[in-house]
Amino acid sequence: MASGRIVLELPEWLKVLVDERRGRTWDSAEARMRFAIELARLNVEHGTGGPFGAAIFEADSGKLLAPGVNLVEPAHCSIAHAEMVAIALAQQTGGSYDLGHGGTISELVTSTEPCAMCLGAIPWSGVRRVVCGARGEDACAIGFDEGAKPVDWTGELTRRGIAVTRDVLRNEARAVLNHYRATGGLIYNSRNDG
Amino acid sequence: MASGRIVLELPEWLKVLVDERRGRTWDSAEARMRFAIELARLNVEHGTGGPFGAAIFEADSGKLLAPGVNLVEPAHCSIAHAEMVAIALAQQTGGSYDLGHGGTISELVTSTEPCAMCLGAIPWSGVRRVVCGARGEDACAIGFDEGAKPVDWTGELTRRGIAVTRDVLRNEARAVLNHYRATGGLIYNSRNDG
Repeated sequence: MASGRIVLELPEWLKVLVDERRGRTWDSAEARMRFAIELARLNVEHGTGGPFGAAIFEADSGKLLAPGVNLVEPAHCSIAHAEMVAIALAQQTGGSYDLGHGGTISELVTSTEPCAMCLGAIPWSGVRRVVCGARGEDACAIGFDEGAKPVDWTGELTRRGIAVTRDVLRNEARAVLNHYRATGGLIYNSRNDG
Repeated sequence: MASGRIVLELPEWLKVLVDERRGRTWDSAEARMRFAIELARLNVEHGTGGPFGAAIFEADSGKLLAPGVNLVEPAHCSIAHAEMVAIALAQQTGGSYDLGHGGTISELVTSTEPCAMCLGAIPWSGVRRVVCGARGEDACAIGFDEGAKPVDWTGELTRRGIAVTRDVLRNEARAVLNHYRATGGLIYNSRNDG
């Protein structure tokens, strides 16, 4: 309680990368996913967190609203999954807790399907579309825990008016997970001793 | 993406309150819950967010590791639920993403049962005990949405080695929710038009 403030800061390489691409648009699901996977891969290469990347796009224009990478270890923060970082950053940048305000259709693109926490966060965020790369089972295959998700989690989102697309560049996304495991990356579930 | 940084700051009244109680311990589940409910009530009184309060305690000593209140509106951040704020603040203050590191038994005390997001966050946080006041259905009764929680959500936590206690000062906790609704507080689910 030194400061009474929580800070989640993007790594420097990601700030530079976003600056370099300012003004660019991403026009297809594949292009957006390629970006999320690139973030996951670079996060591992730079040693700045787990093998997960995400981004929020304005769906129609293809404009990037915010990127996200997993920051659990460097930020000392178990809630700092890539999706949560992208959601919170897009909201604070836009000045609203609702990414659907003013009729905006926001899209969350994530290199791996959301865990139970990130899944629960999606309806509160105001995003209207979710696009996923690797499957939850691909993360579990390398030792991560996805948590207790409803069996029909895509249906739960769809019923709330949030469209879900799965398996976009799944192989490429999974390759980042497998590379992370093969190179000895930390599998950091606090509860994997339970 | 102006700064590449997410900041969640406790309201000033809460920083002052925690300072005033420095060195104090909370020795029973009821005392800890009374504190969480007080935070929920004061958060509404000060107009600094929704009617939810939480805190992380070191279970054995009763020492407060971090408080949390709902900051969704003021922080422009849908993930800033009271439990998430308490978890992230306790972790960043302690310098670890795992509130169970070094064998610490950390306890999350929350004025209302966790929504789907906060529930998903609990296993990743390293807390070993969760103590709840009002029920999820009490929040739903005033119009909040708890999300798609597993039917046996307490069992899901218990199976991961996390003990759950419910209904501690439930009436007092529910009274804060009902007062919030009666005085016209915003029910802010982004998706309640869905």
